[in-house]
This record gives sequence, C-alpha cells and structure tokens, in this order.
Amino acid sequence: MPLEALRYPVTPVGLHYLLIHYDIPFVDPARFELSVGGLVARPLELSLDDLRARPAVELEVTTECAGNGRALLPGPRPVSQPWLAEAVGTAAWRGTALAPLLAEAGPVDSAREVVFTGLDRGYEGGEEQVFERSLPLEEALRDDVLLAYEMNGAPLLPQHGFPLRLVVPGWYGMAHVKWLTRITVVAEPFTGYQQAHAYRFRRDEDDEGEPLDRIWPRALMVPPGLPDFPTRERTLAAGRCRVKGRAWSGHAPIETVEFGVDGAWAPAELDAPAGRWAWRGWHAEWEATPGEHVLSCRARDEAGNTQPDEADWNVGGYANNGVQRVPVRVA
Amino acid sequence: MPLEALRYPVTPVGLHYLLIHYDIPFVDPARFELSVGGLVARPLELSLDDLRARPAVELEVTTECAGNGRALLPGPRPVSQPWLAEAVGTAAWRGTALAPLLAEAGPVDSAREVVFTGLDRGYEGGEEQVFERSLPLEEALRDDVLLAYEMNGAPLLPQHGFPLRLVVPGWYGMAHVKWLTRITVVAEPFTGYQQAHAYRFRRDEDDEGEPLDRIWPRALMVPPGLPDFPTRERTLAAGRCRVKGRAWSGHAPIETVEFGVDGAWAPAELDAPAGRWAWRGWHAEWEATPGEHVLSCRARDEAGNTQPDEADWNVGGYANNGVQRVPVRVA
Repeated sequence: MPLEALRYPVTPVGLHYLLIHYDIPFVDPARFELSVGGLVARPLELSLDDLRARPAVELEVTTECAGNGRALLPGPRPVSQPWLAEAVGTAAWRGTALAPLLAEAGPVDSAREVVFTGLDRGYEGGEEQVFERSLPLEEALRDDVLLAYEMNGAPLLPQHGFPLRLVVPGWYGMAHVKWLTRITVVAEPFTGYQQAHAYRFRRDEDDEGEPLDRIWPRALMVPPGLPDFPTRERTLAAGRCRVKGRAWSGHAPIETVEFGVDGAWAPAELDAPAGRWAWRGWHAEWEATPGEHVLSCRARDEAGNTQPDEADWNVGGYANNGVQRVPVRVA
Repeated sequence: MPLEALRYPVTPVGLHYLLIHYDIPFVDPARFELSVGGLVARPLELSLDDLRARPAVELEVTTECAGNGRALLPGPRPVSQPWLAEAVGTAAWRGTALAPLLAEAGPVDSAREVVFTGLDRGYEGGEEQVFERSLPLEEALRDDVLLAYEMNGAPLLPQHGFPLRLVVPGWYGMAHVKWLTRITVVAEPFTGYQQAHAYRFRRDEDDEGEPLDRIWPRALMVPPGLPDFPTRERTLAAGRCRVKGRAWSGHAPIETVEFGVDGAWAPAELDAPAGRWAWRGWHAEWEATPGEHVLSCRARDEAGNTQPDEADWNVGGYANNGVQRVPVRVA
C-alpha cells in the first residue's frame, strides 16, 4: 500500500497489501465446500450458499503483515518480502461469525486449538505444503472472528482469498487464512510449518522463539510534499503543513500518537475512532522551515505498548514497529 | 500481475500491473474538470458529468509497461522498476472516444501533436514535473483512443487514474496518461521529460534514441506446477500437462504462438480472438517427463514481428520482449 493511501479510512481495492506464499488458487465457487471437522460432535460441510444464508456481520479491520518493516531492520536482510512500511491496509470484511458455527459442530472436551487450511499449495522449507495456521480455541471463539466472503462491498478478489477467508481482528496477517477450505479442531498444539517454523520471533538461529500473534502498535504518516522518481526523496514548500496519518494496535485501542520533527515530539490530534479493529486517523500541524528535516510519528496503545526508536534484528525480520522516519527537504 | 493471473481474460482488479511515477493524486470528482485547448478553434471545459453524457464505448485492452522485462536484460541493471515479466494486464475500459471531442474543439491547420497532462506531480531528472505525454495528431484521432472513467465495470480506482485517464490501445503504458486533466493541441514536437528523456530506446548514453510507442509481441505462460516460497522454483508431477498462456502485440494481431521444451518448438493452439486490443489465449499439451526442463513460448504477429531469444541491453531497460523461460523440475 503506497503510504499516500493512508488518506483513505478503508483502503481502495488493489492498494491493500498482499503477501501470498504460493500461487493464487483458481477456485470454482459452485464446487467450493468448507468442512468443519476433527474433534467435534457434529462435523459439517457448507457450501457458499450455506455460509451466505447464515447471519452476516460486517467489520472494518486493519491487517498488517508480520514482516512489515523487514527491510528497515538493522543487520543482515532476512530472505523474504523486503517490506518497508507499506504492508498494511484496512478493509470492510463481510461474512459470518465463526463462533456459532464452531458451537454447532460442538468441540469435544479435549479440544484446544482450531486449524485453518487454505487451498494454496507450494514448497517451503524443502517440503510440499498447504498454507495452514491454528488459533487457540478461545481465540477462535471470539465473537469478532469472521469467515469472510466479501471485501469492501464486493465478492472477495482472487488474491484476497476468493471465495472464503478467515479474518482474525487484531492479529498479524498470517492468521487470516485465505482460500479457506477446512477447519479442524485438535487437542494438541499444531506444529505445521507456518506455525512451528515460520512466523516466530527468534533472536538467533538457536532460539526456538515465540509465535507472532497480535499486532504491535504503529503509527504511519502520509509523507508530505512531492516524491522524486525513483528515489522517493521528498520536497515541500516552507509554511504551514498539515501532516496526516493513521495508527493501530492489535493489543488495545490507540491512546496517543505523537508527531516528531528532528527528534522533538508533540502530541498529534486523534480523529474519532472508527471501530475497535480499524486504524485511527490523526493529524498534526507543522510550520515547515527551509532545510532538511526528519519527520516521525509514534503510537501508544491503552495497554501501554509503545514503538521503539529502532527495533532489534530478528531471524525472520518480523514485527519491526520501529518509529517511521520521513526525511524531507523544505525549499 | 502474478503470472497465474494469465488465466483470466480480463485481469481481476488489484492484479493489473501498476507503474506510478509520483504519488497517487487524491481527486475530488465534483471539482474535476478536463480542459481541451491549445491550437483549437473552440477550447472546451468538461466536467465528469459532461464526459459521461457523451456516447460511451467499452473496449478490452491489454496494456504493458514499456519496462516489462527490465530485470531480465543482460548487463547492468537500469535504475527503475525491476520488472521480471509481470508488468501487463487486460482491462475492460469504458469511456468516451477522444476523436469526436477533438473534432468539436477543432484543431487548427498547424496542429501536429496532442499533449495529455495528468494531475500527478513529482521530481524527476532533478526537476519538478507533472506527468505529460503527447501523441501525433493522427494517432489521437484514431477512433479507439478513449477517455476512460470506468474499469472492469466500476469507476476507475485511484491508482488507475480516477477520475479520468487516456487509453491508447496498442501502445505501451506510458501513453495512457492517468488522472488526465488537460489536453493541449500543439504545432511542434512535445519535448517534455517523459517524451524527450524517458521512454526512449537508447543503445548507450550517447544515443539520442527512438521514442517507444507500440507494444512489441510477447507470449507468456502460466508457470505450471507448484512454486517454492520464496524462490518461485517450480515442481510438477510427470504426465500430461496442459500449459496455458496469452499473447499480444500492439503492431498487428497475433498470428502464431509456439511452445518450447528444452529448445524444441511446436505450434501452440490459439483460442478465439477476444478483440483487436486484448491478448489472445493459447494452450499446448506437454507430456512431462521426470527431470529438469526449461519451458518457453514465443509469439509472432501478422506484421511479421517476432520475439528475440534474448533482447539487447538498452539504457532505460525498455521493451525487453525476449522469450519467457520457465525452469521446472518434474518429479
């Protein structure tokens, strides 16, 4: 998502970030079925029509790739998508809640996790894989976890998981399994590749690490002024400038955003909240004086989580929510 | 556009390639005006409603970036978007024809070119720029050059030129000026940056070069099998495999496509044409045998234009229509 698209409360289609491990599957919706099985009393098979006949929910959710900021980490570049800060977006997802469906299937007493399997297949870590991730049962039973079949008022696009995807508000993108075809209730921690090997925060190669789950707070601004092609260096005129941006956290609502000029911080003005799971707009006024400046912003959430000035390197290049820095030249 | 999207005759929204020099402009459609001026008898100002009230035309057009294939050229990498072969897409554009509008404005006898000015601004070549390109008057008067306000049945998206863009079927993407706000008829060759400096085919730094205009022929295939993340190396099972793709040329309709395995070529089957300006589907059957193979495809158009095995380096990295090579491992 080019950062000027932070202007939009809901990211226009085609500007929302994408991270796709394998090829985009080509799915015939008429033949599509979602199965719900594993450790349940009553396994289910549902067509798209079955899912659409259930009560519908629409929710604006900000989703961010766990690897956002990877290319800005100090140290050796992890081999994966070299994101700067653009791997984020907000969409209006429409679908049906997962919890009532799971309740109908009836997880048995030993149930601990729920595994979500997509139709996307490929090789990773030297093995043939399907994309699969699990959630703890209590997380899967949250009332705002959705099986989504629409995005921004239209059927899901192929690249966003057509015809069905999981939406787990507040979690990094890897949890929002696309092309969702199977839900399996299990009693043991899921050890699939995307759970046990990828998407873990590891300090070094010997560190088993911690799994990534909820999004750490981040604020971003629309870089002011005009960009250079192709360096993206920015130039603006001296004088009053309103800087706008958005901030989000998967841990708690945003409490404050600060705007910084050359290391001096001042509170930014927050816009009205747009719902618990959507990013929150903010703006700050700046009297731009001629010369070179570095603009920054940083968010704090109500749980007290903040952004580091610079994040520590980690093996996968995950969760770099270091403060955004936008160098500008004021002419 | 990920190459598996070659499956779709019309590229789904958000999978069509984008090349945007500066920031995406944020345009208020109610205040938008298109001006038609310069060397004309009757200058015009048109609102979006005025444009929508004119006769509408819908046309499927394959557009390709002039820099497509840049990263695959031999030699030093030109500093610009490092495309492999994915900078292409086909859209259904709806708008009104340019020629009758120009006729109403009435170019004077000395008119030679028409300059199209977008709202996108930035720095390039060390100078502040707006994106501007010209067409020869006779090209601008073709009956299939459109002022488009819809794409794939919906209003243009911000990143595709909302609210109005030029569509010049058969030409590389730089001619299809987005966020179009001004049309100026001139008597002399236009020497703006994007015409006289960028988008020229130059053999070396001393070569003044030739301007790029029409798209050279190219065939691409959907890479068969499953990809590795992140290398994209592909693996498939032995046995019969139908390979599918599309081919296009801005110079003339596609005449033949050939499919190659390890350097041995055979004719591919062409699907029915989808209109003069849309790519043409093709497929070939392949009996995949275990081992490593390189799959290729190449197109020839009715004007006799073909694809080189490997294109020559050029300063801007333009127009590399060298034959696609897809290494695969058959297990």
